[in-house]
Amino acid sequence: MSTIPLRILGVDPGLRRTGWGVIEALGNRLSFVACGTVLSDEKEELAHRLLALHRGLTEVLASFTPDEAAVEQTFVNKDAGATLKLGQARGIAMLVPAQAGLLVSEYAPNLVKKTVVGSGHADKKQIRVMIKVLLPKADPKSDDAADALAIAITHAHHRTSRALLASLK
Amino acid sequence: MSTIPLRILGVDPGLRRTGWGVIEALGNRLSFVACGTVLSDEKEELAHRLLALHRGLTEVLASFTPDEAAVEQTFVNKDAGATLKLGQARGIAMLVPAQAGLLVSEYAPNLVKKTVVGSGHADKKQIRVMIKVLLPKADPKSDDAADALAIAITHAHHRTSRALLASLK
Repeated sequence: MSTIPLRILGVDPGLRRTGWGVIEALGNRLSFVACGTVLSDEKEELAHRLLALHRGLTEVLASFTPDEAAVEQTFVNKDAGATLKLGQARGIAMLVPAQAGLLVSEYAPNLVKKTVVGSGHADKKQIRVMIKVLLPKADPKSDDAADALAIAITHAHHRTSRALLASLK
Repeated sequence: MSTIPLRILGVDPGLRRTGWGVIEALGNRLSFVACGTVLSDEKEELAHRLLALHRGLTEVLASFTPDEAAVEQTFVNKDAGATLKLGQARGIAMLVPAQAGLLVSEYAPNLVKKTVVGSGHADKKQIRVMIKVLLPKADPKSDDAADALAIAITHAHHRTSRALLASLK
């Protein structure tokens, strides 16, 4: 097993608020690096809001130099307008790590909840409690940042399983 | 009235195919500059496809240096998955001109059809016929490129109306 920890960036995309979280994984051991939220001003025109998200996430990549990235494969059951907005933010969230040459994985919200809490129907409060257990040093200031850390944890977990499966073949 | 023509980029975003068209407008006179389609490979993972769109559109901006941009405000009545995909491509289409410091306007498909053909329910064939009338030198190789030119024409038309309205106030 490698002795160099892998840095993982998790992103919970949203046009108004995009949560991000960076963790380190060494085998099964996880540790907190940083987390936060990139905001865009609702009063700005759409193109400028997307630009703000792009700049914010680009800064995160430059500051914390993750090795791999994971983005929530958000499912929206509201109207088409809300889905289109989310898609636009998600496009930026996928683009920024790809521009830095990172592998970008996608995880469905149910899998994230199941991985972190143990149930696909966990609520935001349960996720925050489990983040505190799994990453004691983490202190996410928003649900979006907590969700982003949960996505990073999910990637840490599933990439190991995938690697294990591949090694058994 | 200015004697320097305004270069307008129109974009018809799509994950698989993003059409683009550049025209010049001097008062009511329009002329064709270039058009084309940026493709992304369906076999690639999403992040790489978005990266391909970003690179392609960035090249268009660098090659044709438009002054303003207009993107179709696509309405999707298919499933949420298709809307999310389109949103992701649209996010990139809005981002690239914003990164170049351009004003990015949005136009609904009905307004584009109404402006170019005269009816909000025009089909793709009627749009291509009118593109040929309005921009005789244009020879779009795809419906997406033709739509992108139609969006650029719509912006040329409506920005003049807006400027006229503003001057009367």
